[in-house]
Amino acid sequence: MAKIAVLLSGCGVFDGAEIHEAVLTMLAIQRAGSTYQCFAPDMDQYHVINHMTGDEMDEKRNVMVEASRIARGDIKALSDYKAADYDALILPGGFGAAKNLSTFAIDGPDCTVNVDVEAALKTTRSAGKPIGALCISPAVLAKVFGDVNVTIGQDEGVAGAIETLGCTHTCTDHGEIIIDQAAKVVTTPCYMLDANIAQIADGAEACVKEVLNLI
Amino acid sequence: MAKIAVLLSGCGVFDGAEIHEAVLTMLAIQRAGSTYQCFAPDMDQYHVINHMTGDEMDEKRNVMVEASRIARGDIKALSDYKAADYDALILPGGFGAAKNLSTFAIDGPDCTVNVDVEAALKTTRSAGKPIGALCISPAVLAKVFGDVNVTIGQDEGVAGAIETLGCTHTCTDHGEIIIDQAAKVVTTPCYMLDANIAQIADGAEACVKEVLNLI
Repeated sequence: MAKIAVLLSGCGVFDGAEIHEAVLTMLAIQRAGSTYQCFAPDMDQYHVINHMTGDEMDEKRNVMVEASRIARGDIKALSDYKAADYDALILPGGFGAAKNLSTFAIDGPDCTVNVDVEAALKTTRSAGKPIGALCISPAVLAKVFGDVNVTIGQDEGVAGAIETLGCTHTCTDHGEIIIDQAAKVVTTPCYMLDANIAQIADGAEACVKEVLNLI
Repeated sequence: MAKIAVLLSGCGVFDGAEIHEAVLTMLAIQRAGSTYQCFAPDMDQYHVINHMTGDEMDEKRNVMVEASRIARGDIKALSDYKAADYDALILPGGFGAAKNLSTFAIDGPDCTVNVDVEAALKTTRSAGKPIGALCISPAVLAKVFGDVNVTIGQDEGVAGAIETLGCTHTCTDHGEIIIDQAAKVVTTPCYMLDANIAQIADGAEACVKEVLNLI
């Protein structure tokens, strides 16, 4: 029974982790007979978005505290993550990956990556363990690793931005995955495409299945 | 293709809608070939809970604005709900059902129910359309309808409380449902039991399947 770390970036697509992608990743892990442990960085969100209007709200929220809503309270600080304790690491998407885990949404290829996120990715790869990334989170892998084969779906602007970081990008459709066997990186587009929730489940299942195969 | 209204009560198990139950209800509807529209009451939450610590936070949040995180922004005010426009109504659980939709968590059988929630439930039943309820939400149905057959799992205290409202309660295990054919009410325990996320998916699927059968 594999133990998978799931890295969350808040709670809500526009300022945190995409909730459907996070929940359906957790479901796919459990249904595969494995277990998950949620992690998040203990830091302020970049901002807080009213998800009805798209407007910024005048308040502060903490990434880990909000992510704990998805985890039903069972969450650990990313600074405590040790690659040795888990068999793989998976990053659901949502703007939180590009606003909190990194600044990709603001700075594009010139983005910075949170130090604990960078350490988690590098130590997991160094340990020869697979990493899965959904939706926009492959952009974080692109910044940290450079030369990896990934997909973020079909958005030419984002694909071009991550290719300037050294990635090879392949366009994909709903539920499809791209596997970089050498880097042990599995990516799938999810809501980077105009998708429904069943298509998100298909993508999460396909990604989790292949991550488990790579262990 | 049925159109199902999903009534959310916030975003997070301790002060709003239980996120897994909400997402997995939406997934079950989509995978059955039907569509969903999320609704929530436009009102302040009873309170805001830090889901890591369980402590109350000194801030205010709006039920509908927070619920829109689960709905990816596509949500309508419950005051605009018309039973004629939908084929069924489903209530995921979470403390939001017992703190925002009603005051059951505070007042037990003496609770009040939000006027728009009461109207939505009564007009849906009057129109002969089925209602599904997960986890603790059958308590809201118990207060509004009184004489219905439901389950909230195996909690004797809660079961006793809703029986004083005129309900017949049946104990259930993971993924099981109770169907009241006359009232067209389908209930399932979900996180009222000590469950994992795959068991929640089983319960949501079973509930949605039977709700669709009753249309």
